[in-house]
Amino acid sequence: MFKLEIDDTLHLELTHPSHAQDAFCLTDKNRELFKTWLLWLDGVQSVEDTKTFINRTLERYAKQNYINCMVFHNNTLVGNVELSIKKGYGIKKGELGYWLGAEFHGKGIMQKATAKMLEIGFEQYDLDKIMLKCAVKNERSCNVAQKLGMSHEGRQRDEIVVNGVVMDVDIYAILKREFRRV
Amino acid sequence: MFKLEIDDTLHLELTHPSHAQDAFCLTDKNRELFKTWLLWLDGVQSVEDTKTFINRTLERYAKQNYINCMVFHNNTLVGNVELSIKKGYGIKKGELGYWLGAEFHGKGIMQKATAKMLEIGFEQYDLDKIMLKCAVKNERSCNVAQKLGMSHEGRQRDEIVVNGVVMDVDIYAILKREFRRV
Amino acid sequence: MFKLEIDDTLHLELTHPSHAQDAFCLTDKNRELFKTWLLWLDGVQSVEDTKTFINRTLERYAKQNYINCMVFHNNTLVGNVELSIKKGYGIKKGELGYWLGAEFHGKGIMQKATAKMLEIGFEQYDLDKIMLKCAVKNERSCNVAQKLGMSHEGRQRDEIVVNGVVMDVDIYAILKREFRRV
Amino acid sequence: MFKLEIDDTLHLELTHPSHAQDAFCLTDKNRELFKTWLLWLDGVQSVEDTKTFINRTLERYAKQNYINCMVFHNNTLVGNVELSIKKGYGIKKGELGYWLGAEFHGKGIMQKATAKMLEIGFEQYDLDKIMLKCAVKNERSCNVAQKLGMSHEGRQRDEIVVNGVVMDVDIYAILKREFRRV
Amino acid sequence: MFKLEIDDTLHLELTHPSHAQDAFCLTDKNRELFKTWLLWLDGVQSVEDTKTFINRTLERYAKQNYINCMVFHNNTLVGNVELSIKKGYGIKKGELGYWLGAEFHGKGIMQKATAKMLEIGFEQYDLDKIMLKCAVKNERSCNVAQKLGMSHEGRQRDEIVVNGVVMDVDIYAILKREFRRV
Amino acid sequence: MFKLEIDDTLHLELTHPSHAQDAFCLTDKNRELFKTWLLWLDGVQSVEDTKTFINRTLERYAKQNYINCMVFHNNTLVGNVELSIKKGYGIKKGELGYWLGAEFHGKGIMQKATAKMLEIGFEQYDLDKIMLKCAVKNERSCNVAQKLGMSHEGRQRDEIVVNGVVMDVDIYAILKREFRRV
Repeated sequence: MFKLEIDDTLHLELTHPSHAQDAFCLTDKNRELFKTWLLWLDGVQSVEDTKTFINRTLERYAKQNYINCMVFHNNTLVGNVELSIKKGYGIKKGELGYWLGAEFHGKGIMQKATAKMLEIGFEQYDLDKIMLKCAVKNERSCNVAQKLGMSHEGRQRDEIVVNGVVMDVDIYAILKREFRRV
Repeated sequence: MFKLEIDDTLHLELTHPSHAQDAFCLTDKNRELFKTWLLWLDGVQSVEDTKTFINRTLERYAKQNYINCMVFHNNTLVGNVELSIKKGYGIKKGELGYWLGAEFHGKGIMQKATAKMLEIGFEQYDLDKIMLKCAVKNERSCNVAQKLGMSHEGRQRDEIVVNGVVMDVDIYAILKREFRRV
Repeated sequence: MFKLEIDDTLHLELTHPSHAQDAFCLTDKNRELFKTWLLWLDGVQSVEDTKTFINRTLERYAKQNYINCMVFHNNTLVGNVELSIKKGYGIKKGELGYWLGAEFHGKGIMQKATAKMLEIGFEQYDLDKIMLKCAVKNERSCNVAQKLGMSHEGRQRDEIVVNGVVMDVDIYAILKREFRRV
Repeated sequence: MFKLEIDDTLHLELTHPSHAQDAFCLTDKNRELFKTWLLWLDGVQSVEDTKTFINRTLERYAKQNYINCMVFHNNTLVGNVELSIKKGYGIKKGELGYWLGAEFHGKGIMQKATAKMLEIGFEQYDLDKIMLKCAVKNERSCNVAQKLGMSHEGRQRDEIVVNGVVMDVDIYAILKREFRRV
Repeated sequence: MFKLEIDDTLHLELTHPSHAQDAFCLTDKNRELFKTWLLWLDGVQSVEDTKTFINRTLERYAKQNYINCMVFHNNTLVGNVELSIKKGYGIKKGELGYWLGAEFHGKGIMQKATAKMLEIGFEQYDLDKIMLKCAVKNERSCNVAQKLGMSHEGRQRDEIVVNGVVMDVDIYAILKREFRRV
Repeated sequence: MFKLEIDDTLHLELTHPSHAQDAFCLTDKNRELFKTWLLWLDGVQSVEDTKTFINRTLERYAKQNYINCMVFHNNTLVGNVELSIKKGYGIKKGELGYWLGAEFHGKGIMQKATAKMLEIGFEQYDLDKIMLKCAVKNERSCNVAQKLGMSHEGRQRDEIVVNGVVMDVDIYAILKREFRRV
C-alpha cells in the first residue's frame, strides 16, 4: 500500500500482508534460480510462510532496525529489497539484501531500487555506513555493489553454506561521505 | 516516508519517527483548540512524547490492527488520521480517529483523508463496518461522519470526560455494502 | 466457594474451578437454546474447556477488570453473570453479560443477579456507568435491561454474527447517579 | 466482598482491594507486637503497600496455588489467614500462615479461621498434607497448631531472622487422613 | 569442561551439554536402583531429556541460585551433585542433592563430593545453613548426611511419593558456624 | 571457581561473580591504556558494573552462545578472554575478544589463552570458523591473530569509534580444518 516512487516505471512499497500472494508466486516461479543464492528459500513453501515472513518484517520496521520493501515495475511486483540496521561499535551501520525475479533481470531495476535504499539509509536513518555481502560467485550481485559506488573491503572464506555448497563471500561497503544521491 | 496519494495537493504518509518534530509543533500550536476534544493532549509535552506515540503506532501497524497516517497538504504536515481495527463478535470492525491543525480547517482536507481511510479499511483490510464516535458538541466532527455517508446509530450519555467536561457521544457507522469509493 | 448472598434462595459465588463440572453440564444441556445468542458456545465442548474459561476469569478478576460469578438458586448452579470493567475516556465503565439455564427462566433470577452486579459495580468498583448490549431479537435480555432502569442509547446495525446470523444490537446503559439499590 | 461463613460471629472474605484501608490500619496499630514475628512488616508502611500485597494475593489465587482471606469478627476486620499450595515430590502440600490483631486474641478466632482453611485445603483443593511453621518462642502460634490436631515433625535451628533476631522454627503438620471437620 | 579438583582421583565439572551422553548412559544403566529414590527418573528417557535438564541447570547457575556438577572419578563420569540456594526468611539457605552410579558406591566418592559442595556453599556463596533431605529408608543417604556433620532436625511423615511408594523424609542440616573444611 | 588448566602457571576460570572485585580493580588500573581500544570501558565505573557484566556473561553461557573466562597467571587474575558463538548462514562461527592488564604484557599469556579458546570452540562447540576483529592500529592484537594461524580476510574502513576516534578494523579468521592444537 504505502509507496516510495523511484521513477515513472519503478516504485517501492513497504512490505504488507496484501503482498503475500504475489510475492510467494514470484518466489516459487524462481525457485530453481534462487536456490543457489538464497538461504531462506526452503522455509518458504506456501503463501502462509510468506505471510509469516512479512509479519516479521513489520515487527522489525516498528523497532526501527529494518526496512523491507517490495519492488514494483509498472505496478507488477518484481522483487524485494531490505535494509537491516545495526547499532554498536559507536557507528550506525546498514546491510543491504535483495532478490529479483529472473524475468526482470537486465533492466537496471535492482540498481535503482538499492540506490533508493541507500538514500533512505543515509538520509532518513542517518547511517554512517552501508554494507553489502554477496557470494563471490554471484557476479550479478557483486556488480550491483560496484555500481552503487561501494568499495571492496574483504573476502571471507567458507562464510556461507547454501543448498549444501560452501561459498566465499565478498564484503562491499559505502560510507556516508562517499554517497551521492542519483 | 512511505506515501498514499489522495490528489494533487493531498497525501497520507504512514506515521514514522521522522514526523515527530513537525507533528509535535503542530499539536503544540493547536493546544488551546485541541484541549476541548483530545483526551491524550496532556500526555504530549515534548517531541519525545510524540516519538513514543509514533513508536506505538508502528508496533500496532505491525500487528495489523491499526493504521496511523500523517496528513500532508502541499507537502506540509497538517494533521493525523487513524483506523483502529477490532475483531470479535464475528465481524471485523474499524474505528476512525483524527485531528487537523486549525489553520487547515475549511478546505475539505479531513473529509478526503478519512474517505481514503475508509477505502483502505474496506478494500485492504476487508472490514465489515467502520465506526466514528464524536462528542455531540463537536459539530465539525459530526459533519465529517455524515458526509462520509455514515448513519447515526446512537447517543451515549456521559461517555467521555475531556479536560474536566463530561460529554455525550454520538456513534456513527458505515457498513461495507454501503461504502462507495469516491 | 466464596459467596455473595442475594436473598434466601439466591446467591452468587465467585467463579472457581470447582464449578467447572456443573457449569459445563448446564451449558451442554442448554446448547440448543444458547447457540442463538452466545458467541463462545462452540468453544465449550468439554469440562476442560470450561476449566480453561474459569482460569481466565480468575486472572482477570486479579487484574480488577472483571468479575465473573456463578448464580445459585437453592444451592443449584443455574447460570452465570459477569461484569467487565474498562477504564479510558476519563470514565470507569462496566458491561454486563449473563446466561441462565432454560429451566430456571421466569423466576426473576437473572433480574436479581444483575441488580446485585450493578450494586457491586457502582459501590465496590466505583464505576460511573454500566452498559448492557443485547441482540435486538433477544427480547428476554432487552427486558432485563429495561427492568434494571437502564436507558436505550442506540441500535448498532449488523454488529454481531452468531451461528451465522447477522444481528442488530441494542445498547442500554445506566449511570451511577441513576442507580438505586433495591 | 465474597464470603465464607464460619459461625454467627465469624466469617472469612477472599482478600480484595477494598480491604486495604482496614487491613493497613490494623497492621499499623499492631506494629509493636507484629515486629517480633512477621518478616514482611517493614515492607508495609502505607495503604499503597497493602494494596500491592493484596493484588499479589489475587494473582496467586488465580493460579490456584494460594488462598488469602481477611478474617472478620462481627463484621470487623480482625486478621488474616493464608494457605499456600505447593505441588512437587508427588504430593499436594499446603502451608498455613496468619496474623490477628492483639485486641482480638483470646477469643478462639484464629483457631476457627485456620480450621476453616484446613477444610478448604483438604476438601476443595484435595491436599494431602497441611503444614504450619512457627517460631519456637511464638507459643500462641504453636498452640494453634496443636489444637488443630497437627503433629510436631521437627525443629529447625537458626531457620529465620526477624527484626535481627535469629530464631528456631517448629514444623507442625496434619495429613488428609488425620483431618476431621469440626 | 570447567573443573573443581577434589583430590588426585576425584574432581567435579560444572554440568555442561557435552556431559549429556555419558550422564544419560549412567542414569539408564542404574534405572532399577534409582527408581526407588529419584523422582525425576521417568522424565529421562533419552539423551535429549538429559540435555534439556542440563540446559536448565545452566540457566539456574546463571541466576546464582543453583550449582550442578558432574562427579568424575579417574576421569570417568560417576555421578551428580547439586546445591540449590534459597533466599528468604532473613537467611541464605542451601539444599544438597545427588546421585551416584551403583558400581561406584563404597569408595567414599559422594562423601567427598558433597563435602566440596558444602565448602563452595559456605565460602563462595556465603550461605548460613545447608540442608539435606532424604527418605528415611535411604540409609546410604542418611549416612552421608551424618558424616558431613549435619544434625537431624526432623522427620516429615508422608512427605514424598516415589514410584508409587509414600515415604517419610528426614531433615538434616549444618550451620555455617558448624562447618569445618576437611 | 571452575577451572581450565593451560600450563603450570596459567589457567582460565569460567567468569563468576566472585571475580568481580579483582576484575574491576584490574580494569580500573588499566583505564588509560584500555580507553583507546575497549568500547565498553566507560560503562564500568564500579564493582557493581562489573557484577552486572558478569551476570550477563553467565546468562549467555547458559544459552550456549558465549563463553567468558578470566585469565589467571600464578593464580592472579590478569585478563579476560571471550568467545561469542553465532549460528546462521549455514555455518557455526565464533568470534574472539580479550583484554590483558598492561603489567602482564610480553609474557605470551594472551597467546596461550586465546589458543585454548580456539581449542574449546573447535572441539567442544564444534565451530566451523573462528574470527578475530581488531583495530588496524592495535598492533599487539593483530599480532595475536597472526600467531594463532589466522588469515587476514579484510579491512573494514571506519568500522568502529572508540573514545571519539574513528578506526579501521582488520578481520582475521581461522577455519576448523586449519586448526592444530598446540
